[in-house]
Amino acid sequence: VPKVKANISMSLDGYVAGPNQSDENPLGEGGEALHEWGVKLKSFKEGHGHDASDGETGVNDDIMREMFEGSGACIMGRKMFGPARAGGDWGDGSWRGWWGDDPPFHAPVHVLTHHERDPLEMEGGTTFHFETEGIEPALERAKASVGDRDVLICGGASAIQQYLKAGLVDQLELHVVPLALGGGERLLDDIGTARFEPMRAIETPDVTHLRYGVAA
Amino acid sequence: VPKVKANISMSLDGYVAGPNQSDENPLGEGGEALHEWGVKLKSFKEGHGHDASDGETGVNDDIMREMFEGSGACIMGRKMFGPARAGGDWGDGSWRGWWGDDPPFHAPVHVLTHHERDPLEMEGGTTFHFETEGIEPALERAKASVGDRDVLICGGASAIQQYLKAGLVDQLELHVVPLALGGGERLLDDIGTARFEPMRAIETPDVTHLRYGVAA
Repeated sequence: VPKVKANISMSLDGYVAGPNQSDENPLGEGGEALHEWGVKLKSFKEGHGHDASDGETGVNDDIMREMFEGSGACIMGRKMFGPARAGGDWGDGSWRGWWGDDPPFHAPVHVLTHHERDPLEMEGGTTFHFETEGIEPALERAKASVGDRDVLICGGASAIQQYLKAGLVDQLELHVVPLALGGGERLLDDIGTARFEPMRAIETPDVTHLRYGVAA
Repeated sequence: VPKVKANISMSLDGYVAGPNQSDENPLGEGGEALHEWGVKLKSFKEGHGHDASDGETGVNDDIMREMFEGSGACIMGRKMFGPARAGGDWGDGSWRGWWGDDPPFHAPVHVLTHHERDPLEMEGGTTFHFETEGIEPALERAKASVGDRDVLICGGASAIQQYLKAGLVDQLELHVVPLALGGGERLLDDIGTARFEPMRAIETPDVTHLRYGVAA
């Protein structure tokens, strides 16, 4: 049975995006700093089809690579695919995601949305599927395609919150970046009470990786 | 120069007390669970003068003992000393703290308050000093008494927030308990933007200890 893993970078004060998110600044003020540790990694650059010869290797790279290689599909919220200006109902359909022609997923990506749209096949094995029937059908479709790999819920906050509250997450991995953003979109808000099982804590100068099992 | 260390147990969703705190339930709903890992430790029981023969030893106990032994004074917010019913102006002065006749601090404890009160000498070396002139004079007095030991800011959220925002904390240690309280008093709220330096991450089944240096 595939495992469902939520995986996201978070500030020490609990934010996954900074204040004042906008179309022009989708990560909010200061939010890019949450991803500095990741974007310089060899595995990240390879995944994005960039020149990876100067990519950083080591513990963080191993963890990023493990996540990519273990995942057979990704689920994301609408805002991770496109901004409001892409058209709530997809407008003329010209918006093809934040992720370029060859997105880093190389796998099916299920986008949670209220608006139907035909699947969008990109280069490199990524196909965006637009899921309008709710989080459970989206998860079932993702699971159906992954074989013995994992389904990754890769954000944003709202998507992860919904899956956590529905009891559909097996594992939560927080990449805790050692800074305070002072505001923005908080990950573990409005999730009610829950118990977690500590599985792994790995500290590096850039980021601390905390892995938890989620009690059913 | 003594170091200033803030040290507190926090839920994974960032709370140091649960919702609906009251005189009868000062830790809020579910808040006691934040301290389950600590109260069973040998060092904790010894510090409280309890029978420690069944106290838990191991990594968590070592960390608790290191904290106790390294600290020469403690600073706490008013609510950690007494409830509202103790009298905002200390009423008849009969309230002598939540901590019993022989409090676990065995050192000077500086209580931040707006209301003057004479020092209160307890058994076992603990004396409560009531600090009405603000957080900086309170810290100066605490530092003056500790020699080469640390000053511990042991809570609650508001006291730690004030010292963090004033740039007066050298080290922040979070004992992250693997549960979500879903509401309550958040530690890292309203602290603005800040950078931390990861120093240590130690995971146990009960709690994950994250130690950070605080950038000046």
